[in-house]
Parts: sequence; structure tokens; C-alpha cells
Amino acid sequence: MHILILGAAGMVGRKLTERLLRDGQLGGRDISKLTLQDVVAPMKPAGTDIPIAIVTSDFADPGTAAPLVAAKPEVIFHLAAIVSGEAEAEFDKGYRINLDGTRFLIDAIRAIGGGYKPRLVFTSSIAVFGAPFPDKIGDDFFHTPLTSYGTQKSICELLIADYSRKGFLDGIGIRLPTICVRPGTPNKAASGFFSNIIREPLAGHDAVLPVSDDVRHWHASPRSAVGFLVHAATMDAAAMGARRNLSMPGLSVTVGEQIAALARVAGNSVTARIKRVPDPVITGIVAGWPRDFVTDRALSLGFTTAEQSFDDIIRIHIEDELGGNFVR
Amino acid sequence: MHILILGAAGMVGRKLTERLLRDGQLGGRDISKLTLQDVVAPMKPAGTDIPIAIVTSDFADPGTAAPLVAAKPEVIFHLAAIVSGEAEAEFDKGYRINLDGTRFLIDAIRAIGGGYKPRLVFTSSIAVFGAPFPDKIGDDFFHTPLTSYGTQKSICELLIADYSRKGFLDGIGIRLPTICVRPGTPNKAASGFFSNIIREPLAGHDAVLPVSDDVRHWHASPRSAVGFLVHAATMDAAAMGARRNLSMPGLSVTVGEQIAALARVAGNSVTARIKRVPDPVITGIVAGWPRDFVTDRALSLGFTTAEQSFDDIIRIHIEDELGGNFVR
Repeated sequence: MHILILGAAGMVGRKLTERLLRDGQLGGRDISKLTLQDVVAPMKPAGTDIPIAIVTSDFADPGTAAPLVAAKPEVIFHLAAIVSGEAEAEFDKGYRINLDGTRFLIDAIRAIGGGYKPRLVFTSSIAVFGAPFPDKIGDDFFHTPLTSYGTQKSICELLIADYSRKGFLDGIGIRLPTICVRPGTPNKAASGFFSNIIREPLAGHDAVLPVSDDVRHWHASPRSAVGFLVHAATMDAAAMGARRNLSMPGLSVTVGEQIAALARVAGNSVTARIKRVPDPVITGIVAGWPRDFVTDRALSLGFTTAEQSFDDIIRIHIEDELGGNFVR
Repeated sequence: MHILILGAAGMVGRKLTERLLRDGQLGGRDISKLTLQDVVAPMKPAGTDIPIAIVTSDFADPGTAAPLVAAKPEVIFHLAAIVSGEAEAEFDKGYRINLDGTRFLIDAIRAIGGGYKPRLVFTSSIAVFGAPFPDKIGDDFFHTPLTSYGTQKSICELLIADYSRKGFLDGIGIRLPTICVRPGTPNKAASGFFSNIIREPLAGHDAVLPVSDDVRHWHASPRSAVGFLVHAATMDAAAMGARRNLSMPGLSVTVGEQIAALARVAGNSVTARIKRVPDPVITGIVAGWPRDFVTDRALSLGFTTAEQSFDDIIRIHIEDELGGNFVR
């Protein structure tokens, strides 16, 4: 099986690559080739016998998609995007990459024809939902984005559903919770502090908390996110019917509950590194974000999380990113 | 006030033009100029002192929008589209006209800048909703299209909301009910029979009813549709907040109730011209269509219908299209 990952250099792309190479197979079929594409060259993984092709190209260039799909990869993970803050600040760039790039891709798939109908797994976002919404957003609450990023993700969801309905591809869009704990350095996402207040104290650094402790949000670990992607690539899509996009399971916790979990897992000396510096701008942005979901549909379709509590999310970070250690 | 109508040669465009010329003003401001655009030349209305410009152009041509908006019309009615059946049969044409055309328009508006922020009234459709849905679709049920046409309308709604949020234009999208009684000859819409079974018998012709009498659907008269457009062009959009698209009021009736109304208004000799010829294909298509709505939001924003019953819809057709007469 030939697998193509678009946006492979990003955090989720790297973790997905690691998982696929570790498994050596996907849905019971051996992986015969892995093509990793991104606008900056994805690092070529070492220590694998699986042939790996690295493609460095601009996803939003009209000519990029055709050669990538010409070899007819059976599974395409489409993770390519610029994040919410950047899409909001750079309007044209956001539409070019997050919308036009996706259209180039699906039209290139369609242009191949001859029965080629790859499974396309698209990472959508809970940013497709904007306030006002119910306390728990259900599977019948649809697109109400309040950002250009959320608008672009909503539009791609609609396109993937329509192209799947027409039989041009076999698409699934999954709305990832906010990934926590996000490893590495902060990206331009305004949601950065949800991870910063865990990752930085565990590394011995101070972290700024710009919102109050009662702010509630929706989280999943990177390990869960990769699990969702793998399941989306291998599940029976016919069970989804015409609605090809769905919200993934996650954990709804307040910032205060995050900090309490950190105290349980790592101790008060670690939580003491969190500095409360209220920021009215970030507080205002976060007020419009989803807090909790009912994800019965995803659960019934077999999507599961790797964690049962926020304590688990912290433990997964310590295991997967810190080699089991942290700075007490 | 300079008003631009895109798609002015269509049925709704012609009726809107008549209404605007009859009123001579919009929202209390005299109409100083009317620009009528369509891919086939709109007929130039006679007997008016208001300067009228006719523009024949392809809405989906990248160069079409800029010269149309260069004169900075204060109000733009965007009615340009190909209908559902055609968009389904001609996939590329549907996306080109119903999606790309709209993007060219809103980007051309944005490119003018300098504080130019016209009211853009976009005719969306109840085709943004696909089954399964509640018996009555409420204001919090969003996009679930099951056609390419409905997908394209959904995407345009999202774009108009985002461009309005960013301050590039002042957009409102209104989801028109099925227009009934649609005058003239049938277009390619699969919903044609809802009008055919009223219009044709009143004109002395037989009409084919391809579905059963218990099929329920959502209707508004052409007079109501024009009223919605005028209200959308003049209302206070700030009251809408970020949600710039909404379902219009209408009447939910079964085909049997339509026929009973026709019997009351025109007599059984007229209804006898309806021939029941069940068509499983049309029956299947219609089964996925919305039947009824709760439109509290539109009502609270001042949108009102011209009719209280389907009898009124028939009377409006006889008044507005048949000069008060029909074939008994």
C-alpha cells in the first residue's frame, strides 16, 4: 500500500509517520511506499526498509497536486494547512493554502479517473464551530465558524462530502480537538497556552496563563490524534453515509482541572511555574471557542482516545516526549 | 442609490427589477441607477426615468466582476446561479458559476477598498439542507447538502459570512423556499412539478404529478421572494451578528393541500387537469428535501410573506401573472 502524507513536516504529520513506520502496515496491508510532502522538506526517517519519497512543494501551487497523486496512492492524509492565527492575519494566504490547495488536490484526484478513488483523510477542526452554541456541541450542530480558518475548514468539509458523494474519492474529515500537550515550540495558534502551561513547567520553565482557571476547553493527546487518523484511513466509510465529517472524541476540562492534574502527576513545585498574567485579548478570543462535545457518532464508528483523564494526557506527554522524566 | 442585479434575466431578477422600478426607491433612498447583468441580455425595462445599464457577461469569467463593481453600487443583489439539476449534471460548470463566480465577485468588492462596503444580498437555498433532518428545520440546523448545488450555496454562505465579519462587505444570504407558483416555462429544477400542477391547469393545460399527494414541501410566492430581497437590502444587518445567512419564512403544505387549495380557488374542473403519473426517480429525489421550517430568526428580523395560505399563493399567481383570469 502506497500512502501519501501532505503536510508531513508538521507535528501531527511527524507523529503519524512514526506510527506508520512502527506499524509497517495499515489496515492489515503492508506499507509498500510512503510519500512525505510539505512546503519545508520533511525529515527522512531513518531505520526503516519501507521506501520513502520526500517531496518539497507548495501545496497551494496549482501544479503541485497532479504529480503527487499520479502514482495513485491508496491512502492520502491531508494535513496541510496554515493555522488559525496566521489565516486570520494573512487573509489571502489562508484562502490560498487552506481552500484553494484542497481544491487543487481533490480535482487532481478526480482528473485521474479510471476508478481511482483513494481514501482521503482530512484534518478538520473544531474551529468550524463558533458561538453561540450549546454547552455540549452535538453531531447535528454544523458549521458556524467565526474565523477565516474555521470558514476554510468548513468549506473543505463540504467539498470532501460532495466529491465523495459523486464517487470522485472516498473522503473522511475529522475535527480534531485541540492537541494537548503539543510538543516543541509554540506555533501561531492562539490556543498555545493550553499546552504551554503543561509542557513548559515539566521542562523546568515558567509558563504564562493568560485566561482564568474556569476556562473550559476540548483536548486530545497527539497519540489520540494519530489514532484517529489511522482509524479514519482504515474504517468502513460506508457506515458514515453522506455525512463524511465528524467531531472526534476528546476530554472537556477547565484550565483549573488541567493544573490540578499537573499537580497530581508532577507535584506542586511544577505547577508553581505557571504564572497568571490575564490577557483580555486572548480571553476574548477563547470565549468564542467550543468547550465540550457529544461525540456519539464518532464513538459508534469506532474512534477511541488514548486517554481517560487529563492526568493520562500529561503522562502520555511525559512518556512520548520526555523519555519518562520531567524537572521536579 | 446605484443598485446592481447579477442574474437579472432570471425569473426572480425580472420581478425584483419590476418592483424596484415601481417603487423608485429602496429603503427611503431614490434609485439613481440600475445595472442589470446576466449571461443573456436582460430585457431593458421601458417606461422609467431611472437610468438603466444592461451588461451581458459571464459571471464566472474572472474579469467580469471588477468592471461591474467599479462604479461602487451601494446595493448588489447576487442572484446569478445555475439550478440544482444543471449543477448536478454538469459538475465543473456548477462549481465554476455557483462557487468561483461568487468568489470573483466578493474579491472584486474587497479589492476596491477605501471604505467601500456594499450591502450584498445573496440568494441561497433550502438545498443547503439534506436528510436526515428534523421534521421542522430550525435556525440552528446548518449545512448538510446532498447535491453539488446545495454544497455550492453552503460554501457561498460561509464565504459571505467571513467576508462580512472581516469588514470587506456587508452581506446577507437568504435561503429562499421553493418559489411557487413559478411563472413561464419549466427550468431544469427537479422541483418543477410543484408549480406545474398549479400553473398549467390554470392555463387550461394538463400537468403531470410525479409524486404522491402526501409529499410535503416548503413554498413562497414570487411576490414574497421579492419582498425578502428588498427587506434584506434595507434592514439593519448589525442585528444579525456574525450569522449572516438565514432561512426565509414560507408555507409548509402537502401536494394534496396544494390541490385542495386549487379546487377552492379555481374549481374541480381545473384540478381535473392534474394527471398522476408516479415517477420513482423524482419521488426519490424529493424524499431528501426539507418539508418544514421554524423561521423565528427571520421573523424577528422583520421578514414577512405576502401569503397566509396556499390559496393566497394561487391568488397571487392569478393576479400577478394571469391578469386576474384563468381557464375554468
